Amino acid sequence: MRKAQLKKYAKLIVKTGLNVKKGQTVFVAAGLDQPDFITMVVEECYKAGASEVFVEWSHQPVSKLNAQYRTLESLSHLTPWEKAKWEFKANNYSCRLFIESSDPDGMNGVDQEKMSKARQATYPEIKPFRQQMENRHQWCIAAVPGKAWAKKVFPSLSESKAVEAMWQAILHASRADSKNPIKAWKEHNSDFRARCDYLNGLGLKYLEYKSANGTDLTVELLPDGVFTGGIEKTLKGRAFNPNIPTEEVFTSPKAGGAEGIVYSSKPLSYMGELIDNFSLRFENGKVVEVKAEQGEALLQKMVSMDEGAGKLGECALIPYDSPINQSGVLFYNTLFDENACCHFAVGHGFNECLKGFEKMTDEEIKARGINDSMIHVDFMIGTADMSIVGIKENGERVQIFKNGGWAF
Amino acid sequence: MRKAQLKKYAKLIVKTGLNVKKGQTVFVAAGLDQPDFITMVVEECYKAGASEVFVEWSHQPVSKLNAQYRTLESLSHLTPWEKAKWEFKANNYSCRLFIESSDPDGMNGVDQEKMSKARQATYPEIKPFRQQMENRHQWCIAAVPGKAWAKKVFPSLSESKAVEAMWQAILHASRADSKNPIKAWKEHNSDFRARCDYLNGLGLKYLEYKSANGTDLTVELLPDGVFTGGIEKTLKGRAFNPNIPTEEVFTSPKAGGAEGIVYSSKPLSYMGELIDNFSLRFENGKVVEVKAEQGEALLQKMVSMDEGAGKLGECALIPYDSPINQSGVLFYNTLFDENACCHFAVGHGFNECLKGFEKMTDEEIKARGINDSMIHVDFMIGTADMSIVGIKENGERVQIFKNGGWAF
Repeated sequence: MRKAQLKKYAKLIVKTGLNVKKGQTVFVAAGLDQPDFITMVVEECYKAGASEVFVEWSHQPVSKLNAQYRTLESLSHLTPWEKAKWEFKANNYSCRLFIESSDPDGMNGVDQEKMSKARQATYPEIKPFRQQMENRHQWCIAAVPGKAWAKKVFPSLSESKAVEAMWQAILHASRADSKNPIKAWKEHNSDFRARCDYLNGLGLKYLEYKSANGTDLTVELLPDGVFTGGIEKTLKGRAFNPNIPTEEVFTSPKAGGAEGIVYSSKPLSYMGELIDNFSLRFENGKVVEVKAEQGEALLQKMVSMDEGAGKLGECALIPYDSPINQSGVLFYNTLFDENACCHFAVGHGFNECLKGFEKMTDEEIKARGINDSMIHVDFMIGTADMSIVGIKENGERVQIFKNGGWAF
Repeated sequence: MRKAQLKKYAKLIVKTGLNVKKGQTVFVAAGLDQPDFITMVVEECYKAGASEVFVEWSHQPVSKLNAQYRTLESLSHLTPWEKAKWEFKANNYSCRLFIESSDPDGMNGVDQEKMSKARQATYPEIKPFRQQMENRHQWCIAAVPGKAWAKKVFPSLSESKAVEAMWQAILHASRADSKNPIKAWKEHNSDFRARCDYLNGLGLKYLEYKSANGTDLTVELLPDGVFTGGIEKTLKGRAFNPNIPTEEVFTSPKAGGAEGIVYSSKPLSYMGELIDNFSLRFENGKVVEVKAEQGEALLQKMVSMDEGAGKLGECALIPYDSPINQSGVLFYNTLFDENACCHFAVGHGFNECLKGFEKMTDEEIKARGINDSMIHVDFMIGTADMSIVGIKENGERVQIFKNGGWAF
């Protein structure tokens, strides 16, 4: 990929993604795959006025060794410096950037039960920081090619050609391959605004999903729920784009309001392993049965991580003919694959999908129906024939999706 | 370089260098240049019984941006998590491994005055931790090729060939290119022991350095000073090899006991810049005049960093025909170049070069003549014709070095 285009991508991430404010501290979490690009991002952060930029490098093969050799007890608490860093991030309105590049299969062979237990044990330490930071800080996830990831996505190409193809796929999916990516994203964000305004004006109570693959699920929405997409805002009003790319209009449904069955339409990569051709059956809003051709045990573990892990936290609407789906590339990475077509997430919901959340405590937000969990895992359910009907309080039906795409 | 040989090198670092103890925590500081090798090192640490291994990655171009864009104030204090990490290291008897690979010219263009001031400002925060850790923890410095470093050392080779040549040079210099590097180091450590025993039995008061290049310097030794080399021991008696490679027998002279002039015999890379063809003139143990064909201002700044920066902290004896010098490779890196020939260091001395230091406070150690400073910078002074004469209290003269090599 040409350096000039990568600079535009770096600038897009810093300006449109994070929207770094003069004097802010920025944390960048990245693998070791594209150090030159990360260096560009750091420089763009400083040029945008960041006072300090801290890169937190990690290397998946080392993470795997840690997972294998450290005891469950050692993995079950934050180190003092990890805690100090969380505290700093929470107290200093820092921007956080996550640059993904890891191998979807990179953690294969790790004891998932041990890792689940470790996550369960550290979650109470992390939760207060997460809550303190929620909607207060700009953050953004974007991606760069890792060699193993690129080879997984383009197995027939040589390593260097796969990485080049991956750069192209990432930049295309991220609307960052044009002459002026920042302008392209301005238009993209305006489109989101118009669609969300329409949906929020309807006052829907339910979404009814149907597909020939067997999906037949009714999801209850929150009375004060809102659809959103693209730009988000911090409580202080700073706009940012948390996902590059993003194609989804989404809301958080009512935890405990889902009835029926939903079938996956794409494989799910979870904790480095694949779960494929699966279904989840809901009763009273909670998963009561899982089936999977591959990874059923892991799927069962996933939805049992805690009380909220078996309830929906997100409904996302994306036309089946989205650019990512049209490209035909399966990225084995949620950031991209979740933007291919409609999906749900089990696990925690988004406070900002509830009107007036700014003045509520976490307990109130939970009581109002936003799901709470240590996990948030997206899985794809969109199909070419998917129908979604919105149902109002008075029973009136409005076609939202038809033949896999927007009906309005 | 063949993977099998690299595994032997990784094992040498972990077993002979650090001598990791079962249950110990290990910190590995490394650049991004050889992630596969660092992963091997991490695995060897775990195989040796380490309970936790934390890799602290850094990337010189990002460090350079930080140095350029962060304010002096921002650079002048430890972050809370850096402080937490120092505390942990100091309190937990952790092993510390430093894997060097950085570009000798990588920090060119950075404002050295700003960086000096920042180091001066952070030193009081770091000093108590350093003191707490001294001689209590195993540590080791070793090296791997970085691309820019390799091209600097082998400018006529292509990047990939330069890296390969650099691997060979590093492994050869480190006595790690044989079938059994761990055995080779056992013999190497025995040789050191024999030479140090001889020198310590002489009871020398002065070392008198002379060379045709103009060097004419008399250095006063400590009454209770000891020569050492190769293996060191923690206070709890754990043996380790802090430097891979090492060829030096060394001691810390009496701070304030040097008279005359010494000429450099190799360039010095300091804070990413080169100082070349220089001399230091000492009066009453302190530098009173510096001259340099290149980097004179930086040299003057270096010896003025603090009270101890202009006094000697180390005298190291290495034959001029050492393997590293014979190889003819100039590494532009102290770890290697300091093992080419005799050198001094200005700045802090080594407590373990004073008999009975274990029972003394830092103030007592300083009062006994071990130099104290925030810096410790080695510079090469060995020549092919160098003569070093040891002088006893009673005036008796013993030839230690003759024509650049050991006289005994």
